[in-house]
Amino acid sequence: MPASQARGNRGSETPCDLEDFLRRSTQAVNQALNRFLPKESAKPATLHRAMRYSLFAGGKRLRPALCLAAAQACGGNWADAMPLACAVECIHTYSLIHDDLPAMDDDDFRRGKPTNHKVFGEGIAILAGDALLTQAFEIAAQSHGWPRYSHRDIVREISVAAGSRQLVAGQVADLEGEGRKTTAKELKYIHERKTSALLSCSVRLGGMSANCTPSQLQALTRFGYYVGLAFQVIDDILDVTQTSEKLGKTAGKDVQARKATYPAIVGLDRSRQIARRLTAQAFSALRNLDQRAAALRALADFLLQRDH
Amino acid sequence: MPASQARGNRGSETPCDLEDFLRRSTQAVNQALNRFLPKESAKPATLHRAMRYSLFAGGKRLRPALCLAAAQACGGNWADAMPLACAVECIHTYSLIHDDLPAMDDDDFRRGKPTNHKVFGEGIAILAGDALLTQAFEIAAQSHGWPRYSHRDIVREISVAAGSRQLVAGQVADLEGEGRKTTAKELKYIHERKTSALLSCSVRLGGMSANCTPSQLQALTRFGYYVGLAFQVIDDILDVTQTSEKLGKTAGKDVQARKATYPAIVGLDRSRQIARRLTAQAFSALRNLDQRAAALRALADFLLQRDH
Repeated sequence: MPASQARGNRGSETPCDLEDFLRRSTQAVNQALNRFLPKESAKPATLHRAMRYSLFAGGKRLRPALCLAAAQACGGNWADAMPLACAVECIHTYSLIHDDLPAMDDDDFRRGKPTNHKVFGEGIAILAGDALLTQAFEIAAQSHGWPRYSHRDIVREISVAAGSRQLVAGQVADLEGEGRKTTAKELKYIHERKTSALLSCSVRLGGMSANCTPSQLQALTRFGYYVGLAFQVIDDILDVTQTSEKLGKTAGKDVQARKATYPAIVGLDRSRQIARRLTAQAFSALRNLDQRAAALRALADFLLQRDH
Repeated sequence: MPASQARGNRGSETPCDLEDFLRRSTQAVNQALNRFLPKESAKPATLHRAMRYSLFAGGKRLRPALCLAAAQACGGNWADAMPLACAVECIHTYSLIHDDLPAMDDDDFRRGKPTNHKVFGEGIAILAGDALLTQAFEIAAQSHGWPRYSHRDIVREISVAAGSRQLVAGQVADLEGEGRKTTAKELKYIHERKTSALLSCSVRLGGMSANCTPSQLQALTRFGYYVGLAFQVIDDILDVTQTSEKLGKTAGKDVQARKATYPAIVGLDRSRQIARRLTAQAFSALRNLDQRAAALRALADFLLQRDH
């Protein structure tokens, strides 16, 4: 089923110009991150350069975009959601820096550029990750509270998604799975934690910044979960089908590292089917949201159809 | 000037039985940490074992004790301060795990036990640190708010103290200073960030949990700052005067690593003078607090007189 059909009976709503949305959201997020982060010249300069190096390495700002689109979907605005969008991006970036370390995935390239530790050394890379994780909470604290959601809720939301049972758990499972046979079930466990948790958190935070209703929050949670799984399956597919140049990272790396991937376990065709099914489930989660969720739907479309 | 004189005109107040205070506070903090942390059996078990390994490795619980004593000093109670005391201990433990890594100080022993990465490997040690840092915010979010201080204030307090301009900045300066000549001024910069920032944060959080007045908060800030500096100077002194067995870590390590220490820069006698002066300044900061600050004063006494 093509993604456009999977969207269901939303054919009549105003289509979202996703390219325009992403251009504007990326620009707004970059400006906000630049404002929130200490300047490169701030002491210690090496650390702040390292933090900014990875934060401004050309990331797609997908999580912030999802956060802003979710806020929009619930009648909120970008300004209220922005600190939370930026907090999530800091967490994502910290996790990439640490994942790339020699003791973890040992990656030399990320987004077409040398990884943080290749430029700044392992010690600074570890500390830049630590500082970005901490900074995420400092930025989140700059958001204002809303009738239904307090700073307490927001901090809990972020810390649980980024914590030992979600984001970090995913990386642990990934690390422990290397070099041994992984089942499809274990792989799903990893993807739920490494990707879905933070994507789900991104859209939930967007909703919370718009003072969303409990049923809206539930819809966003399911949406984020399925989009996250689909996203990761597609990442696996791209790793075996695309060139390094297009990906901006070492292609075939997962295969080389004997890392578990969907194509390796269930084959390429079945992986593509799974990705399409998951995307359909993501769209289905949004069925009770109105036309203000157009950007969120367009983002899911984009995620399924991306080729790098 | 001996510390007992430095305490000033507090001779008439009820003396604090520090041994009893520390026994009770350590026990209460250990119980609370055990409650707040995921069980060892919680998936991923390796990660939770690694987190607990370092968190329950026999640390003195000095920062939580300072937090609880500060709460007491401002008329508060331990129960309200406990989540914040535990959050600070998680941050302290994470920073030790990462500081001990091969890419940092490369330490094999801590508190008489093999360091985290020696037991669990570098990858898990990095992740255990990440998870403890994240957990700190999750725990802090479990505290309730107070009229003067919100969760927003508390999260900002912790994230700034643990962030890129304080705790992490100290480790960066430490890392960059290794093997080259450091001035006394640079060393003070490191100590302010590596130690004072989090000690000051500990007592401030204790005060905040007791809904302290702005002037009480200011007193606690100064107290934490001076106690932190004194603490670190004494650490340096002990490194050159004590055996590994007594310290529970490799003695003389700082000298070996050509790491800047007060004794190396200004000599042992002058270092001892500085430690005494800093402690006097810490006591002086508390002069306007009443007899409820007895435990806080006793803790400062203890810090100056400790021999391991």
